[in-house]
Amino acid sequence: MNQETLRNLLERVARGELSPEAALEELRFLPFEDLGFARLDHHRGLRKHFPEVIYGPGKTVSELKKIVASFLEKDLPLLVTRVSPEAVEALLREFPTLEYHERARLLGHRPREQEARGLVAILSGGTSDLPVVEEARVCAEYFGNRVEVLTDVGVAGIHRLLPEVPKLRQARVLIVVAGMEGALPSLVAGLLDRPVIAVPTSTGYGANFSGLAPLLAMLNACAPGVAVVNIDNGFGAAYLASLINQLPEEVHGTHP
Amino acid sequence: MNQETLRNLLERVARGELSPEAALEELRFLPFEDLGFARLDHHRGLRKHFPEVIYGPGKTVSELKKIVASFLEKDLPLLVTRVSPEAVEALLREFPTLEYHERARLLGHRPREQEARGLVAILSGGTSDLPVVEEARVCAEYFGNRVEVLTDVGVAGIHRLLPEVPKLRQARVLIVVAGMEGALPSLVAGLLDRPVIAVPTSTGYGANFSGLAPLLAMLNACAPGVAVVNIDNGFGAAYLASLINQLPEEVHGTHP
Amino acid sequence: MNQETLRNLLERVARGELSPEAALEELRFLPFEDLGFARLDHHRGLRKHFPEVIYGPGKTVSELKKIVASFLEKDLPLLVTRVSPEAVEALLREFPTLEYHERARLLGHRPREQEARGLVAILSGGTSDLPVVEEARVCAEYFGNRVEVLTDVGVAGIHRLLPEVPKLRQARVLIVVAGMEGALPSLVAGLLDRPVIAVPTSTGYGANFSGLAPLLAMLNACAPGVAVVNIDNGFGAAYLASLINQLPEEVHGTHP
Amino acid sequence: MNQETLRNLLERVARGELSPEAALEELRFLPFEDLGFARLDHHRGLRKHFPEVIYGPGKTVSELKKIVASFLEKDLPLLVTRVSPEAVEALLREFPTLEYHERARLLGHRPREQEARGLVAILSGGTSDLPVVEEARVCAEYFGNRVEVLTDVGVAGIHRLLPEVPKLRQARVLIVVAGMEGALPSLVAGLLDRPVIAVPTSTGYGANFSGLAPLLAMLNACAPGVAVVNIDNGFGAAYLASLINQLPEEVHGTHP
Amino acid sequence: MNQETLRNLLERVARGELSPEAALEELRFLPFEDLGFARLDHHRGLRKHFPEVIYGPGKTVSELKKIVASFLEKDLPLLVTRVSPEAVEALLREFPTLEYHERARLLGHRPREQEARGLVAILSGGTSDLPVVEEARVCAEYFGNRVEVLTDVGVAGIHRLLPEVPKLRQARVLIVVAGMEGALPSLVAGLLDRPVIAVPTSTGYGANFSGLAPLLAMLNACAPGVAVVNIDNGFGAAYLASLINQLPEEVHGTHP
Amino acid sequence: MNQETLRNLLERVARGELSPEAALEELRFLPFEDLGFARLDHHRGLRKHFPEVIYGPGKTVSELKKIVASFLEKDLPLLVTRVSPEAVEALLREFPTLEYHERARLLGHRPREQEARGLVAILSGGTSDLPVVEEARVCAEYFGNRVEVLTDVGVAGIHRLLPEVPKLRQARVLIVVAGMEGALPSLVAGLLDRPVIAVPTSTGYGANFSGLAPLLAMLNACAPGVAVVNIDNGFGAAYLASLINQLPEEVHGTHP
Amino acid sequence: MNQETLRNLLERVARGELSPEAALEELRFLPFEDLGFARLDHHRGLRKHFPEVIYGPGKTVSELKKIVASFLEKDLPLLVTRVSPEAVEALLREFPTLEYHERARLLGHRPREQEARGLVAILSGGTSDLPVVEEARVCAEYFGNRVEVLTDVGVAGIHRLLPEVPKLRQARVLIVVAGMEGALPSLVAGLLDRPVIAVPTSTGYGANFSGLAPLLAMLNACAPGVAVVNIDNGFGAAYLASLINQLPEEVHGTHP
Amino acid sequence: MNQETLRNLLERVARGELSPEAALEELRFLPFEDLGFARLDHHRGLRKHFPEVIYGPGKTVSELKKIVASFLEKDLPLLVTRVSPEAVEALLREFPTLEYHERARLLGHRPREQEARGLVAILSGGTSDLPVVEEARVCAEYFGNRVEVLTDVGVAGIHRLLPEVPKLRQARVLIVVAGMEGALPSLVAGLLDRPVIAVPTSTGYGANFSGLAPLLAMLNACAPGVAVVNIDNGFGAAYLASLINQLPEEVHGTHP
Repeated sequence: MNQETLRNLLERVARGELSPEAALEELRFLPFEDLGFARLDHHRGLRKHFPEVIYGPGKTVSELKKIVASFLEKDLPLLVTRVSPEAVEALLREFPTLEYHERARLLGHRPREQEARGLVAILSGGTSDLPVVEEARVCAEYFGNRVEVLTDVGVAGIHRLLPEVPKLRQARVLIVVAGMEGALPSLVAGLLDRPVIAVPTSTGYGANFSGLAPLLAMLNACAPGVAVVNIDNGFGAAYLASLINQLPEEVHGTHP
Repeated sequence: MNQETLRNLLERVARGELSPEAALEELRFLPFEDLGFARLDHHRGLRKHFPEVIYGPGKTVSELKKIVASFLEKDLPLLVTRVSPEAVEALLREFPTLEYHERARLLGHRPREQEARGLVAILSGGTSDLPVVEEARVCAEYFGNRVEVLTDVGVAGIHRLLPEVPKLRQARVLIVVAGMEGALPSLVAGLLDRPVIAVPTSTGYGANFSGLAPLLAMLNACAPGVAVVNIDNGFGAAYLASLINQLPEEVHGTHP
Repeated sequence: MNQETLRNLLERVARGELSPEAALEELRFLPFEDLGFARLDHHRGLRKHFPEVIYGPGKTVSELKKIVASFLEKDLPLLVTRVSPEAVEALLREFPTLEYHERARLLGHRPREQEARGLVAILSGGTSDLPVVEEARVCAEYFGNRVEVLTDVGVAGIHRLLPEVPKLRQARVLIVVAGMEGALPSLVAGLLDRPVIAVPTSTGYGANFSGLAPLLAMLNACAPGVAVVNIDNGFGAAYLASLINQLPEEVHGTHP
Repeated sequence: MNQETLRNLLERVARGELSPEAALEELRFLPFEDLGFARLDHHRGLRKHFPEVIYGPGKTVSELKKIVASFLEKDLPLLVTRVSPEAVEALLREFPTLEYHERARLLGHRPREQEARGLVAILSGGTSDLPVVEEARVCAEYFGNRVEVLTDVGVAGIHRLLPEVPKLRQARVLIVVAGMEGALPSLVAGLLDRPVIAVPTSTGYGANFSGLAPLLAMLNACAPGVAVVNIDNGFGAAYLASLINQLPEEVHGTHP
Repeated sequence: MNQETLRNLLERVARGELSPEAALEELRFLPFEDLGFARLDHHRGLRKHFPEVIYGPGKTVSELKKIVASFLEKDLPLLVTRVSPEAVEALLREFPTLEYHERARLLGHRPREQEARGLVAILSGGTSDLPVVEEARVCAEYFGNRVEVLTDVGVAGIHRLLPEVPKLRQARVLIVVAGMEGALPSLVAGLLDRPVIAVPTSTGYGANFSGLAPLLAMLNACAPGVAVVNIDNGFGAAYLASLINQLPEEVHGTHP
Repeated sequence: MNQETLRNLLERVARGELSPEAALEELRFLPFEDLGFARLDHHRGLRKHFPEVIYGPGKTVSELKKIVASFLEKDLPLLVTRVSPEAVEALLREFPTLEYHERARLLGHRPREQEARGLVAILSGGTSDLPVVEEARVCAEYFGNRVEVLTDVGVAGIHRLLPEVPKLRQARVLIVVAGMEGALPSLVAGLLDRPVIAVPTSTGYGANFSGLAPLLAMLNACAPGVAVVNIDNGFGAAYLASLINQLPEEVHGTHP
Repeated sequence: MNQETLRNLLERVARGELSPEAALEELRFLPFEDLGFARLDHHRGLRKHFPEVIYGPGKTVSELKKIVASFLEKDLPLLVTRVSPEAVEALLREFPTLEYHERARLLGHRPREQEARGLVAILSGGTSDLPVVEEARVCAEYFGNRVEVLTDVGVAGIHRLLPEVPKLRQARVLIVVAGMEGALPSLVAGLLDRPVIAVPTSTGYGANFSGLAPLLAMLNACAPGVAVVNIDNGFGAAYLASLINQLPEEVHGTHP
Repeated sequence: MNQETLRNLLERVARGELSPEAALEELRFLPFEDLGFARLDHHRGLRKHFPEVIYGPGKTVSELKKIVASFLEKDLPLLVTRVSPEAVEALLREFPTLEYHERARLLGHRPREQEARGLVAILSGGTSDLPVVEEARVCAEYFGNRVEVLTDVGVAGIHRLLPEVPKLRQARVLIVVAGMEGALPSLVAGLLDRPVIAVPTSTGYGANFSGLAPLLAMLNACAPGVAVVNIDNGFGAAYLASLINQLPEEVHGTHP
């Protein structure tokens, strides 16, 4: 559409129907989005294998139904995060083909199996962090990555972590999920030369302050190679891990 | 320049030197800023009577000298905020015509007197807040507003504030600067039907937590009509007050 | 009544029934409010087109019923904010003519349509902020402003915001509602020379800390022209926007 | 009992059954509490007109029943604070003579009317703070003080506060309850030369942070003569007000 | 002056030179402050034995000189708090009769000895809190109270506090200064039936957070009868203690 | 298994089937865990009299059932902390021999009575802290310690604490549980030369901030000999107390 | 003295000069401290091998001189912590025999060598924490413990920590000092069955918030057996470690 | 050395001088680090082109001198971060070949030029953030990456950012440095499908709280693909960017 507008304008200039000066004037006020959208769309092409991700909270059930319907209609990949139990029930009743990942609180639709690439390893120290681990795992798989999950490798029992090191060396990116004191990312980054995405969780009590303790710990990780996402943000970690894992070969060439 | 680029392109299309399709391709990659800048510049024309404001901290003295020189050369209005004493000394030695407002920590240059419009009243409760009051006052005057300052009208002595109410009713906007418990904006907004811009200050000690106490108080003002800027941000309050005071008549018409 | 008291006193002085000295003594102790109220009332006359706004929480249903009844009786405009679902049900059953705005949690009564003046634009980035957006919108309309709402223009997709800029330039005041990182007000204030009232919302999770993240971000907005109201305070933003939008022409004259 | 122990010991010394040296040795290890308790009891005599105050939360219903029963049995004055609705129901069913103050969440028993002394004034700005106001009022009355309550005298409407000043001057102590920005204590302390006990409340939202905002504001009160108790602590304010109100004449004499 | 204005007006009414209606109109606009100031002045008469207290920080040396000079000229009592060493030096050079209390950072002038009334006891746990203790002591003495100071009676050594209890029972008000864990006020309030004004201090390190730890502890004092002033606010504690100590006999009579 | 691997390797070297160089190469890549696990197991032998402790939250009922079943099967000691009421009901129905400690929210199984060693004293100030006290008590008993509990010995009534001092001197470790201002550990550590483990509790309200107030107070304890565990962490205190109480005689000898 | 008073009283009873009843009356008012002090002194006898520890900050140089002089005079053991460089210089000039530990900021005097008992191990991750490590080490040695220090064993390089485990197993108590993310205590407590005293340090920057990050991490340690002292409190850790290390055999017997 | 130990042992087994069982026993106690170090070293080989990075603060000048000397001796690459001006002066005097990057506060030594790979783009909004930008830039270059720096592309002026988008698309990783409201990472991540490493800076004032505002904003970034490092941690961002940029092709194979 926008390209059409622009092509029409240029063709009218080419046909002499519009003076360059008048075209210039029209172009000056051409709404931003049109050019902008085109270009953004263009580079968005790189994301073509990524499902759309819908943030569940704050949306009414009927809003969610409309969104889901429009995706299923076109058989597009879809992920809805942090869905409330009520919304899950209503959506599954209406769209029984949706996949529901209970502990991850995710609803998804994958049109067809795609080949997974590159290993993303997800580590955590205990069962309390499983909802976040699962959110990261399901998202990372939807995003087309090979995923390996290791739970129960917390700092208080490094004899369980150390034997996994050789296996972990095969991962391209590590997602480390931890509540409590949030020390696992430092430990892992000290053992492995791979990007570590640290996810603090809100599990804990008292001076944990709903994830503040592991968040601060991770931001202060003494081993370099660690960056942190929001508390309980398994999706965000998976998204970034996927961007890193699927980073294309070095881009060459010039820009206009 | 950018208009030149665009005009050249259109003229090449008009002359048949460039096909519409090829022109379309070039346009797609035309840097955003060029069109963007033009349009932004256009609406920035409304700001034409405002001096440029330079944030002092983090700039070296030699960087500041270059900036000031470039403004003075073109006789453009200029304000530099939060200038360190060392920078002030160096700049005044090199540019003796600069105006220096010591308590406001401002250096300025006003090419010519402009007629001030609309009254902006600045209120505060005590001498400790004077640096912020002065920053607001000098900025508001540079921005072309009539300014009246009332200090010593704190909540602990409302008998000093109440007799000023009739005078304050003539102001179009009120900037209320307060440290300690930050209660003055509520009081003023309860007395007057005017927009109140609240400026918390960091003066105080102990549970003041460098301005956190008045900041929170102001955000919780029980009288409506109050909005808050950053702690000690006299400049920001003056800028917003000026935008409000000089708000043009209702805009009519259509956009492209 | 108070004027009556005062007039009686003066008439007794005029009739010689009361010496000036005795009248002076009585006046000295005349309760403040009487004089005060009169004067405040006087300047409150400016607010005459504003409905009364009742803060819902902390009031029992029976207290709310009494308040609503007394307004409806006199056919006065009325807004009740943050009403609990139970109170809504009880009040609507008793006063079926009340308007109920569900997402905004507002109950209102508007005696008659008034002509709306000046455009207030309300922007937000997503559906999660809709309750706050709606509170601001309904309030602003009750307060007599023309309102335009743009949701889905968050910082992560500026290609959706940029094409709206020309339209936004017609607004006299901008209310920008944002949760998450709260960056939208900076972006908007950088694009437009209009007062921006920033409303942080509590939507988000983890390191959002119930709105603390966007609140701090907005207070630190690098673009001037922004002031902030309390988290989720759509009503407060609408009230201030209305004060700004309906600011009378510059006041001239002297005070008594 | 303890006095018995001691008397026995002394009588054994008097009868020559115990040498002074052996008695000395026994006394050295006499448990502290015995002597201590006696003395504390003695000075506790000053509190004789105060009912016992039981903190409700954390106690099971059956524990509360035992406590209440033991007081009623001896017809002793009693106050139970912050009682849960379930506990209230159970206790009233069992002890129907208990007085229940719903908004204050207090259960009480007063053996007989006592003459109230000295005026304690309780001020607040709105209906949201009523539970705390009521807790303070009921407690202060139980503690034997004359109490006057003024609600709806917030900072945003000082025309309602000012006419009450002459009446307030008759109070010996002022309890000022405020949520939101917590500014009322400063205002009151600036108007009156009386001890002001400030009670921040948790009513409010967003940047109120459950009473942190008014707490900090009150601690920073710019008018001297203000001290602060815990958020929502109406009981504590009443207790301190009562201590001040009933302060005996200056104590003379020496200590042992 | 204001009384004059009012008397003239009333006399003109009495003489028939002004109609009651016209007088009413004039009175309506009579500035607030005039009546207000008179009344406030009136009740301020109660404070007549209190020296004026000037808050030092934020005032330039030359501003302080002017203030001090104006007080000394009239031989009025004066206290300047938190004076910087530079200001002290400059002021003492110019006004050698000023009393300087180094540890309390106070400069004062007392025209004549006044008889001290009622005992205010000041307690603290260690030498680190001495500057605050001294500020409280000097202020309380200037305000006309008898003062007794007990340092070194911290919670970690209650064997030093307990023997002082009989002496402390003679005090009418207790100021308890404490840093570290701030536990002393609870202990003291548990031992004595007197109003306890708690002053947290900023001495300490680490998780003391500049006085936050003792501030929170004191607000949570489990013994009733405690209220808290700002961190390090020895002056505020002394002021309130003085108000309590010198509370007049119960006020009788009616208000207009 | 691992020892087997290693022994095989060494035997192959001894038999000349493997050159030392090749064995070296194999050893270099021998997984960490194998050696590591063995050694850790070895020193874990010291813990043999401790029951396993399972953290309840975040585990589903069916996960808990599996864990409990596997312990009961082998008649191993077991403790599950912070069990939700639903889980308790389900587990007790399935495993009726489990011991349930309601106030401590603990489920446990003790195969056989063991002789308790060394006295651990647990102190607290009131009934609100009982859940934490009980968690500490039950755990400490399961861990094989003699335990004595003293509640109702808060700082506001030291006459109840002091007579217990001689008895407390017989304890080897003291666990001091306190909410509110958290002052009890300082007091106790000032009276007794024993390690004090301080447990802040979340009971309280307002400026208690869910246990932050006592946590900070305890970290700032002015009496040395105090260390702090997480808010409400009765289990952690019991575990550490047990480690201290059962500390073996000084270890002699060398390490490899 | 007090014993004298008491003995006199008992002898007067024995001689029949005083009736038991009158003696009882006198005893009731016998100041607390006298008995109290005696008893406290008694149990303080257990501390006899510990040097006195003086907290340096807040004391003037002349106060420190007096304290030091009084100790040296009697050749008593002495430690002064956190001494400022000025105080150090002045004290060393006057008392050249004092030992000065620069990095620990400690001044000390040890009358004679004592035999050290039981191993206290101090671990830390880097050179930045050395001042705290040194404070802990020097104090622990003064308190009569054998001390071993391991720096450079942080979580980011567990290959440096693991080989030390056998050696660490010989320690009776572990002091673990850590800044940054504060994860070392969890790791150590997971490896060793010994009491771990965790000391967060203020070294770090940004989201370390002067030690808040490691403090919270340590309070949330997922491995049990850890308790925490104040940020940078090396002395406190050493004191507690010493209490634990030198804990006497289980106390038997009864109390009076 | 360790390999020697191990080889000797194996050779003794091979020669029959040591039984496999005895060798097993010796191996069991072989310190961890030896095997461990070897393996870690092995995988550390991947880091071979990375210079060692020394954290400057907390190290004395003489310690730094020793470290630098040992690196220069072996001509190893070296970076020292956050060096104090005094240390810089001392080190440059002694080691004049060191490169000093003043704004980045870095001292470095690069043995030889290496070919830079893959583009890392560093963006920031203003000159105040330059020290952090420079730290990131110098580190990223030392680590062997091609680096492009864009300052002055803040959210308040997106017309300066948008035209750079095509150039930025060539970067493999983006480091986004921002103080104030910290909104730039969201904006950038919304425009580009590349990993964004967000670095909050402490520049700002008031409610910036030394970088807390941008830190929280970045953790709440509404655009996915963002992770955050510590405030002002330019080095950490460069290290992680380098790990991502130089991520090897997908690893295949098995582990031992």
